[in-house]
Amino acid sequence: MSVAKAIEDATQPGNRNLIRESWNMMAADRKNGVELMRLLFEMAPESKKEFTRLGDISPANIPYNRKLNGHGITLWYALMSFVDHLDSPNDLEDVCRKFAVNHVARNVLDDKFAWIKKPLEALLKNKCNCKQDVVNAWCKLIDVICAVLREG
Amino acid sequence: MSVAKAIEDATQPGNRNLIRESWNMMAADRKNGVELMRLLFEMAPESKKEFTRLGDISPANIPYNRKLNGHGITLWYALMSFVDHLDSPNDLEDVCRKFAVNHVARNVLDDKFAWIKKPLEALLKNKCNCKQDVVNAWCKLIDVICAVLREG
Repeated sequence: MSVAKAIEDATQPGNRNLIRESWNMMAADRKNGVELMRLLFEMAPESKKEFTRLGDISPANIPYNRKLNGHGITLWYALMSFVDHLDSPNDLEDVCRKFAVNHVARNVLDDKFAWIKKPLEALLKNKCNCKQDVVNAWCKLIDVICAVLREG
Repeated sequence: MSVAKAIEDATQPGNRNLIRESWNMMAADRKNGVELMRLLFEMAPESKKEFTRLGDISPANIPYNRKLNGHGITLWYALMSFVDHLDSPNDLEDVCRKFAVNHVARNVLDDKFAWIKKPLEALLKNKCNCKQDVVNAWCKLIDVICAVLREG
């Protein structure tokens, strides 16, 4: 899918509103980004090898891992920057492309980035009791990043 | 100065409140991050060679530079993540250390990062009519990043 089509899908009013409403329920707790990373390592353990910089990300050490804490909180602000620009497709594309730069440099392309979908679904269901339509809307937003990453 | 001392200075109530009050006046306009980059290139032109990734950052092209747009908006969210954690020194340290990772990788260390102080002062004065005490408080926050970058 092209970046343009992915953005068109993610920003159509139905998806945009579902993303925003769920985001507003969970945005204030920045530590949800750390929880999302914890879920990623649990549900897609093959992802762990992409995060050697973070050191010990075993379940027992996750609560004490300061690098993971910084990474997770920063991830949360990245998601915020996407959600905040759902009504401004050009800006959304620009922040997604900036977000992708370091992923491309680390060779984390669309196939690997898509690992976040299942943990994100779990987070949405755990934190907001979201239904599948909300999950699907969020996946459209993740698909924007994936489309950018597919260009490499 | 140690990271611990820099954090202690930036987060003491006087500085924290000055930073927050001024941030709240300008935070909503995410494009202020783009303006901050424009001011950086204008006031510290030696910084431009650190941003070759962005392509044409001549004054005439800045309004049309999509990479710069994405970079500036993303910078604004980074500042937000710092300001939001002024009452949580450990989290502030962790997000600053995460922010520093890519700067270290690009060899943008404390001497270069400090270039942002004068453009930030100009932005604070232009957007919020801030007095010098507010500028000084923000410089304490920039000093946290510089202290982290000094460790390399």
